[in-house]
Amino acid sequence: MPKVTIAQNILAVNEHVAQEIRQALMARGVRALNIMSSPGAGKTTLLERSIERLRGRLAIGVIEGDVETSADAERIEAAGAQTVQINTRGACHLEAHMIRDALAHIDLTATDLLVIENVGNLVCPAAWDLGEDARVVVVSATEGDDKPAKYPQMFAIAQVMVVNKLDLLPYVDYDVQKVRRHALAINPNLRIFELSCRTGEGLEAWCDWLITFARGA
Amino acid sequence: MPKVTIAQNILAVNEHVAQEIRQALMARGVRALNIMSSPGAGKTTLLERSIERLRGRLAIGVIEGDVETSADAERIEAAGAQTVQINTRGACHLEAHMIRDALAHIDLTATDLLVIENVGNLVCPAAWDLGEDARVVVVSATEGDDKPAKYPQMFAIAQVMVVNKLDLLPYVDYDVQKVRRHALAINPNLRIFELSCRTGEGLEAWCDWLITFARGA
Repeated sequence: MPKVTIAQNILAVNEHVAQEIRQALMARGVRALNIMSSPGAGKTTLLERSIERLRGRLAIGVIEGDVETSADAERIEAAGAQTVQINTRGACHLEAHMIRDALAHIDLTATDLLVIENVGNLVCPAAWDLGEDARVVVVSATEGDDKPAKYPQMFAIAQVMVVNKLDLLPYVDYDVQKVRRHALAINPNLRIFELSCRTGEGLEAWCDWLITFARGA
Repeated sequence: MPKVTIAQNILAVNEHVAQEIRQALMARGVRALNIMSSPGAGKTTLLERSIERLRGRLAIGVIEGDVETSADAERIEAAGAQTVQINTRGACHLEAHMIRDALAHIDLTATDLLVIENVGNLVCPAAWDLGEDARVVVVSATEGDDKPAKYPQMFAIAQVMVVNKLDLLPYVDYDVQKVRRHALAINPNLRIFELSCRTGEGLEAWCDWLITFARGA
C-alpha cells in the first residue's frame, strides 16, 4: 500500500518540523495555540475581541490560515496584533512547514502568545501538529449540537472547547449541555468556555485563561 | 514529484468510477445531486423538509456521508426516504467508490432523484466527482458572508447555491447581496435559492426546482 506509506512519511516530516517549531518557541518563551473550527464558527471574531480586551496586558502574534483572501489578517491587524497571512491555495489545513516560514515574519521578542488560526474545517486540521502547546476547537450555537459526535477526532485532540454565539440560543434548537456531555465523553479533560463575541458574555474568563496559558500554566 | 503523480492517479481512478456511476444512473433514468456545505449549514434539515414536502410527488433516495454516526441517516429515513449511510471513519470527503458500494443498497427502480449528502467540509469534497448530475453548495446566514470569497473552489464547481437560515438574519451581520455578488463573480451561472428550513420560506421554489431537475431539465 504505497499510498499509506507516503501519507505516513508526510506526517512524520510534519511532526519533525513541528518539534523544531515547539523548541524554537520554547527557547523564546512564546506559547502557541492552534485554533480550529468549521467555517464561520467565529474564530476571527473571537481573536479580534481577545486582542482588543488584552491590549497592554498580553502581546498576541497571529498566523492566519485561509484557503484564499487576506481578509481575516486585515481584521486581526486592525485589532492591533502582529499578523502574518498564509494562503493555502486550495489546501484544507495548515502544515508545520507553513508555520515555520510564517514565523520568519513575526517578531517573537515582542510576542507573549502566538495564535495560529487554522483553515475552517472540522476534519483535516486535526491530523497536523503545528508545534502548538494547545489546541482549541470553536463550535457555535447555530451549527447544530451534534458536532462532537460527528467529528470526534477534532474534540479528542483538543485541550479547549469554546462554545460561541450564545446570544443566538433563543432562536435555534441547540442543547449546550448535550454538546458538553458528548465532548467530555470523547475527551474528559477538555476545558470548556461558553461565550458570545457579540455581547461579550464569557469573554473575560476566556481572556483570563489566555493570560494564564501564555505564562506557561 | 511522486506525491503529485499518485494524487493524480487517485483522482483519475475516482473519475473513472464516477463516470461508471453516471452512466448506470442515466440508464435507470435517475438523476443525482451532490450536496455540500460547512458542518451545520443545514444540509440534513433541508433534505428532511424537501422529502416531507415532495412525498407522493418525487421518490428521493439518499446517500448520507458522515465521518462518524448514523444520526443523519436515521433522520432522513424517518422523513420517509430510502437511505444508505456511509461512514468515512476519519476521511474528510466522499469518493466515487463509496457511492458505487452504497448504490447496491438502493432500489433505483423506485427512485426518481438520488441525493448524496457529502461530509460537512467546504474544501475537500469539491475535488471529488461522485457521478452526480449537479452540485449544490449550502451556506447559512450565521456562518459569515465571506464564505464564497474564502472558499472559491466550492462555488466554482457548484451549479446551485442555497442560502439557508434566513430566519436568523435579524440577529446576525450577514449581507445576502454580498454573498450573491461574490458567488456570482466566481460562477456567473450559479442558480441561487434563499430559504429558511425553520419557517418554510423559500422551500416551495427549491422543491419545484428539485422536481424539474429530476425530470432531466
